[in-house]
Amino acid sequence: MTPKIAWTLRAIAAAAVLGSSMAAVAQSDEPVSPVPAPKAVNPAAVELGKKLFFDPRLSKSGFISCNSCHNLSMGGSDNLKTSIGHNWQRGPINSPTVLNSRMNLAQFWDGRAKDLKEQAGGPIANPGEMAFTHELAVETLRSIPGYVEEFKQVFNTDQLSIDEVTTAIAAFEETLVTPNSRFDQWLDGDKTALTRDELTGYQLFKESGCVACHNGPNFGGNSFQKMGLVQPYKTANTAQGRMDVTGKDIDRFNFKVPTLRNVELTYPYFHDGEAETLTQAVDVMGRLQLGREFSTDENARIVAFLKTLTGQQPQFTLPILPPSSDKTPKPRPFD
Amino acid sequence: MTPKIAWTLRAIAAAAVLGSSMAAVAQSDEPVSPVPAPKAVNPAAVELGKKLFFDPRLSKSGFISCNSCHNLSMGGSDNLKTSIGHNWQRGPINSPTVLNSRMNLAQFWDGRAKDLKEQAGGPIANPGEMAFTHELAVETLRSIPGYVEEFKQVFNTDQLSIDEVTTAIAAFEETLVTPNSRFDQWLDGDKTALTRDELTGYQLFKESGCVACHNGPNFGGNSFQKMGLVQPYKTANTAQGRMDVTGKDIDRFNFKVPTLRNVELTYPYFHDGEAETLTQAVDVMGRLQLGREFSTDENARIVAFLKTLTGQQPQFTLPILPPSSDKTPKPRPFD
Repeated sequence: MTPKIAWTLRAIAAAAVLGSSMAAVAQSDEPVSPVPAPKAVNPAAVELGKKLFFDPRLSKSGFISCNSCHNLSMGGSDNLKTSIGHNWQRGPINSPTVLNSRMNLAQFWDGRAKDLKEQAGGPIANPGEMAFTHELAVETLRSIPGYVEEFKQVFNTDQLSIDEVTTAIAAFEETLVTPNSRFDQWLDGDKTALTRDELTGYQLFKESGCVACHNGPNFGGNSFQKMGLVQPYKTANTAQGRMDVTGKDIDRFNFKVPTLRNVELTYPYFHDGEAETLTQAVDVMGRLQLGREFSTDENARIVAFLKTLTGQQPQFTLPILPPSSDKTPKPRPFD
Repeated sequence: MTPKIAWTLRAIAAAAVLGSSMAAVAQSDEPVSPVPAPKAVNPAAVELGKKLFFDPRLSKSGFISCNSCHNLSMGGSDNLKTSIGHNWQRGPINSPTVLNSRMNLAQFWDGRAKDLKEQAGGPIANPGEMAFTHELAVETLRSIPGYVEEFKQVFNTDQLSIDEVTTAIAAFEETLVTPNSRFDQWLDGDKTALTRDELTGYQLFKESGCVACHNGPNFGGNSFQKMGLVQPYKTANTAQGRMDVTGKDIDRFNFKVPTLRNVELTYPYFHDGEAETLTQAVDVMGRLQLGREFSTDENARIVAFLKTLTGQQPQFTLPILPPSSDKTPKPRPFD
C-alpha cells in the first residue's frame, strides 16, 4: 500500500469512526500498513550519527546520552514514568520511543519540533535533560580529532556546527525502524502469523474505534488528539500538550498520538507514564477516549493483538567513540 | 610467551628495578606480553551476561546499568573523575576499566573482590551506585519471562539466583579483551608497528622504572603498590586503598596498579581521577613513584608509547533486552 493510499484510508477510517460505522472499513484494505523501509540514507552520516547518539559528551555531566532516555536495548525508550535528567532531575514527561519516529508528523509529545533534526537539538540544550549548550557541544566535538576527521568526511567541512551534529543524529534515527512484526507479516499476506485471539483483538481494535487515532504505518504518530475525550483525564502532570506550542486554549491536552508499534517494549504509557501495563492503558483509553468499558476478555484480546506489533529491533554494533583530547572541555556533573 | 614465563619475567623485572639495573632486562624478552585470547567460554552465558551488563533494571532507578560506569563505547570506563551513582551521588573513586580486567589479580582499586564474579555483585547492592539489593534484582529478573527462559537454557535452573546473575556477567566480562594494539603487533615481531618516538618512549618506560609496577600482559593489574612512594600523594579523596580491606595501617594508600592497556581511552587517571591527561599522569608518576622529573620531551615520548597500547575494542551487537512483565517490580528513581 502506498503512503498516499494509507493516508486516504486513515482519513476514511477517522470519518467512519465519527459516523459510528467502523465496520465499513474494508478488511482487505486495512487502515494500517507495514513499516516502510527507511529512506535512502548516507551510510557514513548514519555511522557518525550513531556515535553521537551514544556519546554522553553531548551533556554537561558527560553521563547522559541520547541513548540514556531512548535506550535502543529497551524499545527506544527508558521504561520510566518520566525521564531522569541532569542532576537526577525528574523530567516532566514520558520519553517517547525513537523507534519509527521518522514516520511521526512532528516530534515531542506536543509536536514542537517539526522533524528529527530539529528534535535532536532539544535535549542537548534543555537544562532539565542534558543541560549543555549547542556552543559547548560543538566546542567539545571540535576538540576531538576523531570526530573532526569524521565530520570532514561526511559533511566536507572543517568547521562542524550544531547543524551537522543534528543532521547526523537524525540520519541515524531515520534508520531506526522495526520491520517484520508478526502483525506486518499478517498484513503482508501470511494468514498464519496471528492467533485467533490476536486477530479478534485486532478486529475489536478497529471496530471499537482505537484505529481512529492509531492508524497508518506507525499506528499513530500522525495526528494530535485530545487526551480525555469522553471523560476528562486526571493527572498531576502539568504538561498542557499542544497548547504549550500554539498558546491556544483549544489545544489544551492535545498530544501527539503515540505509535503503538513495539508498544510491548515502551511501557509505561501515556504522556505522564501513569499507565503501567498495557491492560491499564487499554482500559483507560476505552473509557476516556471511546466511552467504552472493555470486558476482561476483550481487553486481553486487544493486548494480545498489541503485542504482535513488536518488530525486529535495530541490530547494530555498539559504536566505539573517539577519545577526547587534552583540549576537550571537562565534564561538569556536579557544578 | 606463556603466562608462566611472563610472570617470571615480571618478577625479574621487578627485582631488576629494585636493583636499579633495568638495562639487564633483555630486549628480546620483554617484561610485558601481548593480550592473551579470552578463556574458552560458554557463548550462551556470554550472551546472557551481555544483556545483564546493559540492563538498568538491575538498579533501583531502572536507569543505571553496569555499562553506565564501564561504558564499552568509551574504553570500559565513564571518563569521569569519580562515578555518578543513584540519585546523582558523587562516587568515591574513579571507575576502573572493565577491559582486560580478567587479568587483574583482584577487582576494585582496593582488590576487595577476588574475581569478576564477586565484583559484579558489588555495584548492584551498593547504595551509592545502583542502590538495589540482590534480592530485588533476582525478583526483577524472575518476573521477566525472556530472562527466565534464557537462565534456564544457560544454567539449567528454574530458580535463578544472584549466583547465576554474577556468573553470567563475569562470563561476558571475560570476553572483554583488546588484542592487536600496535604495541602488541610490535611485541609479536612487526618491527615497523611503532615509530621511533614510541619505541624510545617504551625504552624510557622500562629504564626509568615504570615497568616495575606496570608489567605483564595487562601492563599492571597484578600487584598492589603504594600511591606516593618517593613523595606523598596529596588528595582530598578519602579512599584508603588496601587498608580498607586488611585494616592494616601499612596498607594505607596501597592501590591495585591500574592496567595501562587502552589508557588513551580511560582518562582521567588515578584512583581519584585527578590527573586529567596522560601528560599529567606521567609527570606525577615520575616524581612521586620514581623520584624522577621527566623532561617535556621524555614525557611526550612516554605518552606516545602509551597510546600504542590501545587495542581492538570489543565488537558486538547492542543487546536487545527482554521486556518486563506486568509483575516486574517498578523502578523507583525518586523514592
